[in-house]
Amino acid sequence: DEDESTSPLPDSFDELEPEQIALLLESLPQDARRHAWGLVPAELYADVLVAMRAEARESLLRQFDSQTLDQLTSDLDAETLIELADSLPEEVVDIALARMDDRQRTHYEQSASYAEDLLGRYVDHELLVLPHNSRVRDAERLLRRQVPEYSEHLWLVDRTGRYTGAVAINRLFGAASHQPLAVFYDEELEALSADLTLKEACEQFEMAAVAALPVVSTEGRLLGRMSQRLAFELVHEQHEAQLMASAGLDEDEDLFAPVMRSSQRRATWLGINLLTAFLASWAIGLFEGTLQQVVALAVLMPVVASMGGIAGSQTLTLIIRGLALGQITTSNIMPLLKKELSVGGLNGVLWALVIGVVASLWFDSAAIGLVIGLAIVINIAAAALSGVLIPVLLEKLKIDPALSGSVILTTVTDVVGFVAFLGLGTLLLV
Amino acid sequence: DEDESTSPLPDSFDELEPEQIALLLESLPQDARRHAWGLVPAELYADVLVAMRAEARESLLRQFDSQTLDQLTSDLDAETLIELADSLPEEVVDIALARMDDRQRTHYEQSASYAEDLLGRYVDHELLVLPHNSRVRDAERLLRRQVPEYSEHLWLVDRTGRYTGAVAINRLFGAASHQPLAVFYDEELEALSADLTLKEACEQFEMAAVAALPVVSTEGRLLGRMSQRLAFELVHEQHEAQLMASAGLDEDEDLFAPVMRSSQRRATWLGINLLTAFLASWAIGLFEGTLQQVVALAVLMPVVASMGGIAGSQTLTLIIRGLALGQITTSNIMPLLKKELSVGGLNGVLWALVIGVVASLWFDSAAIGLVIGLAIVINIAAAALSGVLIPVLLEKLKIDPALSGSVILTTVTDVVGFVAFLGLGTLLLV
Repeated sequence: DEDESTSPLPDSFDELEPEQIALLLESLPQDARRHAWGLVPAELYADVLVAMRAEARESLLRQFDSQTLDQLTSDLDAETLIELADSLPEEVVDIALARMDDRQRTHYEQSASYAEDLLGRYVDHELLVLPHNSRVRDAERLLRRQVPEYSEHLWLVDRTGRYTGAVAINRLFGAASHQPLAVFYDEELEALSADLTLKEACEQFEMAAVAALPVVSTEGRLLGRMSQRLAFELVHEQHEAQLMASAGLDEDEDLFAPVMRSSQRRATWLGINLLTAFLASWAIGLFEGTLQQVVALAVLMPVVASMGGIAGSQTLTLIIRGLALGQITTSNIMPLLKKELSVGGLNGVLWALVIGVVASLWFDSAAIGLVIGLAIVINIAAAALSGVLIPVLLEKLKIDPALSGSVILTTVTDVVGFVAFLGLGTLLLV
Repeated sequence: DEDESTSPLPDSFDELEPEQIALLLESLPQDARRHAWGLVPAELYADVLVAMRAEARESLLRQFDSQTLDQLTSDLDAETLIELADSLPEEVVDIALARMDDRQRTHYEQSASYAEDLLGRYVDHELLVLPHNSRVRDAERLLRRQVPEYSEHLWLVDRTGRYTGAVAINRLFGAASHQPLAVFYDEELEALSADLTLKEACEQFEMAAVAALPVVSTEGRLLGRMSQRLAFELVHEQHEAQLMASAGLDEDEDLFAPVMRSSQRRATWLGINLLTAFLASWAIGLFEGTLQQVVALAVLMPVVASMGGIAGSQTLTLIIRGLALGQITTSNIMPLLKKELSVGGLNGVLWALVIGVVASLWFDSAAIGLVIGLAIVINIAAAALSGVLIPVLLEKLKIDPALSGSVILTTVTDVVGFVAFLGLGTLLLV
């Protein structure tokens, strides 16, 4: 790692996997990226582009000359074109389709009929398929002709193309050649519906813990398979999307996106946040008179707000994980609330004492200590409550709690904290 | 999902996978969890416990009676005991070891000799191994006897047990029985070193995109394999750890951890945060005189701090992702800084104008608008700078930027924001 982080661009990309080249290209400023594209071997064009995040990929594609586009579209399979189609001008997609053989074009059209977040769109069509009444000897004959690098199962279908079961290739060695293949169906291999969302498909795939699962249409027709590689890609994308969403960013955000575009996108998030900040200011503004008389309150405001924000975000994070794992149900929300309120209560009292003593000494006033202590207890309790309820409510409203949970939470803890602190100050100090 | 979230506990766990039972148990308060354990079929005890997060698992194990422990330790394999060993009392581990057969015990000792974060510890020992000079017919004989559910390769070793290569079982169908197996070595299957960290191992595994990879000792001896299931588990753990770390939480945190323990753990994070909050208060305290004269400054403080914090966390998140992907190098830090400063500059000026106008109207003073506008520009620029430099420096110091990056960043933006705002206020308004 140490080496990598100081080394410049390699002289050639010949030794690298497409995924590695993609990461490298993404890490370069736009000009250097365009220049480095010249090092990519033509036969890897498609794979490298597929492996790149959309925004960086599009920054390259916009610069391609007709010769590069020609090379790119010369030999695309259905799966690759599906991944690239959104980034390509429509006429280029048409050219690529025209250059495909009929089988690939059918695959493409089938995949394209599924929406962007459905499994059916990303199905892998490379399969070893046999009629469901085949015998072991038919399988052996097929395997002698065609070595399937990609799969350890044979997939069986009936006359209408409906999936009937899969047989592990391993099982053939112990079998007699006249036996029907159906005897060896792998019971554990349940088909995935092409209508599953990618998130659902990943969950089912991981539970199954196999190298590939069959994917079927609503009518039960075998469309293709979901491979481990796809599952890994999707899991990473989902996690990355969650990480980026927590800062109001998109998973496809380019490290070197053009300044104007990047500014525009981030402005939205800053604008939303500004509204919540003005809300906090408004809460403070209610107590202008008090602040004028007891300036210590202004000095200590960040402590009250920040302790609430941190305590709340701990609860929030725990609940967001629980929601993602499907562990938060109506039957455990009450005990969870009770537990988080108890934890908040204990920590509230502990830190109220510490902060109260420090504030009393700092401003030489026991009353200030009392006011901030009470405000801390109130705000940490409110934080625990909000940390549980906000993400649960957002989930009910089908809004991703990882995206907006923390903005809403800190708004609540800011406003509650300032009102409690300055309100108590008005009552006890003025 | 909708159904699941309102349904109570199922009557029986017979239909569920161990992973599903584990998630269910984790979602229950401690008493209900102990009660629900009675529904777990005895033959799934070990699998369910392995699938649980450590803290919840230990909450159950502490309550086990001797009969349950006896059932649990009656038939453990090396891989399972390795996963459970840290959660079990030493004498129970000894009992489990005593009840293992010699082969499993050897596997266990070998695995236990690797540290907790090394691949060697989690190696799967179920393998089909053949001498490197075997022929196709030897492989066929082996496969007729033993159906390997778990693997699609045969693993070849020399006389000293050193790994020489792997052959895809699929390849045997096209081969003549007298051919040496070594002819069919799968060139793409590179062995992983048992000394790799789990993070490194996952990266290499994903690049390879196969169902399993061989794992070898420093001397090249074949220890076992890294399976896809392990890779998925590890990837999820790493992502979960990152999510939880961002709120100062541990990945093993139990949803229903005992209140005392949970409070203690969270207290540390709150304490660290308190220090940074007092730092912000101290910065404000430098301007007590100004605040007394211009109370509007106290009202607007949260706006300055919060805009800096949000802008900074966007840059920080982008850089943390880049670091995780290995995309941030000494050669692109300068262009990145330049880009982020440009984005920050644009958004700084934009929001300075908006906020300046709002503040001027609110407090009926163009000077206040000017002061807050300038402070916003300064703080958003500081945020862009810190958002790039803080995570890069933390990474250099081998501190996880996902853990402490955001605390340090908001401290910087709070202090810079308050000093800029109140300092300019002192110069221009008093």
